[in-house]
This record gives sequence, C-alpha cells and structure tokens, in this order.
Amino acid sequence: MNNTNLEQFEEIIQYKFSNIELLKKAFTHSSYANEKHIEKYDNNERLEFLGDAVLELVISDYIYNNYAHMPEGELTKLRAGTVCETSLAERARDIHISDFIMLGKGEETTGGRRRDSILADAFEAVIGAVYLDGGIEAARRHILTQLEGTVGKIKLSLNTIDCKTRLQEEIQKTSKEPIHYMIVGESGPDHDKLFTAAVSHDGATLGMGSGKSKKEAEQSAAMDALRKMNIIK
Amino acid sequence: MNNTNLEQFEEIIQYKFSNIELLKKAFTHSSYANEKHIEKYDNNERLEFLGDAVLELVISDYIYNNYAHMPEGELTKLRAGTVCETSLAERARDIHISDFIMLGKGEETTGGRRRDSILADAFEAVIGAVYLDGGIEAARRHILTQLEGTVGKIKLSLNTIDCKTRLQEEIQKTSKEPIHYMIVGESGPDHDKLFTAAVSHDGATLGMGSGKSKKEAEQSAAMDALRKMNIIK
Repeated sequence: MNNTNLEQFEEIIQYKFSNIELLKKAFTHSSYANEKHIEKYDNNERLEFLGDAVLELVISDYIYNNYAHMPEGELTKLRAGTVCETSLAERARDIHISDFIMLGKGEETTGGRRRDSILADAFEAVIGAVYLDGGIEAARRHILTQLEGTVGKIKLSLNTIDCKTRLQEEIQKTSKEPIHYMIVGESGPDHDKLFTAAVSHDGATLGMGSGKSKKEAEQSAAMDALRKMNIIK
Repeated sequence: MNNTNLEQFEEIIQYKFSNIELLKKAFTHSSYANEKHIEKYDNNERLEFLGDAVLELVISDYIYNNYAHMPEGELTKLRAGTVCETSLAERARDIHISDFIMLGKGEETTGGRRRDSILADAFEAVIGAVYLDGGIEAARRHILTQLEGTVGKIKLSLNTIDCKTRLQEEIQKTSKEPIHYMIVGESGPDHDKLFTAAVSHDGATLGMGSGKSKKEAEQSAAMDALRKMNIIK
C-alpha cells in the first residue's frame, strides 16, 4: 500500500500520523504478512491487542461520566454492546476500512474483506496506532467521533429491554395474575414489516406499541403501559 | 472512616488525593452502603468498573512496549495473568486494603475482609479513584509501582510453560517416539517439598530439574533438556 492511499484514510478519520508506519501496520492482516514473509510481530495483531484496551478505557470513562447514576451492571452491558464485534464492524465500514486493509490471497478469495471479525480487528488496530502515535487524548477524540452515537443507541435499546422487566416488577407488587403480550397487527412488505403488540393484565389492556419485530413491538407496548401507569415519562 | 485513616493509605500508596471523597468511595463495599442506606451509585462498584479498564490499558501498554516481539497470543496470556483476581488480591494485601475497606456486618462476620474477590475489586476501585483524581499518568505510576514485579513473574512462568511445549515440538521434528516425564525424587517437609523430575526420550535421559510442585519440576527438566540440546541458553 502506498502512502497516497493512507493519506486518504487520514482524511476520513481526520487524524494525521507522525509515524505513518503505524497505520500501515494496522492494515496488515496476518494472512498478508504470512504471504509476504513479513515478521509476525509486524502484522496488526499486537496493535489490535493494544487498541482493544484503549477502546475499553475510553468507552468506560465516557459512560462512567455521562451516566452518573447508572449501576455497575448496566455500565457493563452498555460497554459490552458498544464495543462488540458487530458494532465495531459497522463503524469500520463507515470509515471504509475494507478499502485499505491488506489481506493474503486465501482470505481475499473467501470474502475476508467483508468479514466482521477482520473489520473489527482492524478497527481496533487503527485505534492502537492512533494511541501510539498521538497519545490517549488523540485516541479518545478518534474513538468518540466514531462511537458516541453507538453508545446512545445501545443505551436506548437497554432502556427498552428494561421496560418489559420493569412492568413485570410493577405488576407483581400488587398481583399474582400474569401479564399477557399479544401481536394484534402486522403490516408492510416482508422486508419492512411493522408489528403491533398489546399488553394486558387481568383482562384489561395496559398498553400498545409497534416495532420492526414482534419483540420490539412488545417492548414498546410495555413502555406504553409504564407511561399510562405514570411510572415513566 | 475518618480522613486520618485515609491519610495513612495515601502514605502507603504515595499518592495524595485532591478529592478524598473518591478514595472513601473506593473503600465503600456494597454491603456497607446497603446497611447505611447510602445511594447505590456511591458504593465502589462503579469505580471498580472504571479502574478495571484503566488497569487493562496500563498493563497492555506496558507489556506492548516492553516485549516488542511478543506475539498477540502471549501478550494476552501475560496480561490475563497479571490482572487476574489472585494477583490483584495479593497486591491488595501488600498495601493493606483490608484495613481500610468498609463492609456490612454480614460480610464482616463471614470473612469478607479476607476474601480475594472483595480485595481485588477494592484494588481496582482505588485505581479508578486515582485515575479520576489525577488522570492517566498518576494511575499509571500507581499501577506500575504495584504490578511491575507481577508482570515479570508471570512472564517467567509463561517461559517455563513454553519449555515443555517447545521440547515436544523439537522432538517431534525428528521422531514419533513420545517424551516421558518421571518424578525421581521428593524431599523436605510437607509444607516445603522439593520434587525432582527427569525427562527422557527413546530410552535416553534428556534433562533433569527440580521445583516446588511436580509440574514445576517437569517444566524445569524440560528447560534443562532444551539447554543441553543447545536450543535455549
């Protein structure tokens, strides 16, 4: 890979390396290194190891400070959701990592360039490279630019999950009758379905809600019920 | 806990807090917080969450830079060994964390003050407190003062583990005959045994070595064999 290409990547992530070799290493997949007889320690695995830890700290620090009253268990879930392979591979695609990564022929022909694990690993290796090149603050800026939105999304989905559990807990305080969820509507084409669910208890409908999956619709119905019971706003 | 006590701890770790409340929180176990009706987010679990990530980064950075040619798999093993509960609880004992931690009555009576998990968690919470109070460099100094020696020890034990595997690999290059380990000696009192092992192949003794456990003695014998074969110095 020539340096002109790497400059394009610097443009995308808005970070200029002092030592461009670090970025080159971050894009060197082990399969490429093996093929070209590059020393094992010059593929991107060591940088990925380091970048993983930098990512973990930056996200931990961010959510610790932004969710001051969130208990440890939820902080852990929020961090795990943010730094999971799927999230990182998505962000790797946003910054076109697959255009820059160097793969061996075997990986290339078996679709490695589109594989989540390879993309997420390279994403972490780039973080490691930015950290070594510019320190923790440069890495923090880079990481939060890429992942601040993801934290927000995961937080929302955790909230939704909490709604069904929360409703269950509220109802159990005063009643032993179970809660029922029912899918009452389904519309739209196959690739863009919308489901509607109702939640009822002891013969009375507590709430209704819609979502792109049956589960999402139920969560949304639980949230509606909690609102109507004035438990959440 | 009064601030005079906390000053003693500051003396031990050679770090002076700007905000002593952070240190107090690091010593507040959830059982104590529950008993005193302290808000859940004011026990040490959130600090432990943050401290864990700070510790992970500082150790990753340290071993990345100190073992420049170590492959990712070994870096991961070395980090895991260094930050495991047992290692952290040992270091927690060195700095007398058990004298400062505040426990609820239940935990106190069931020996919580000596429990590895509680000590290791408080050790991480103190790291989180130093990080919030003094930033990453203060946390790095604190962590490396406590754990640099541990990294070295774990590295040595990994080397020893490598000897048996290494010998196996060397022998397999030229022979299909298996390697045999045998305990040939045992001496000393029960609490301070010394075992001696011999390793042989195809009827010939390759090496001998001693250790405090049978396993350690075998590893040591493998190392002796590798030396005699001029594979390691």
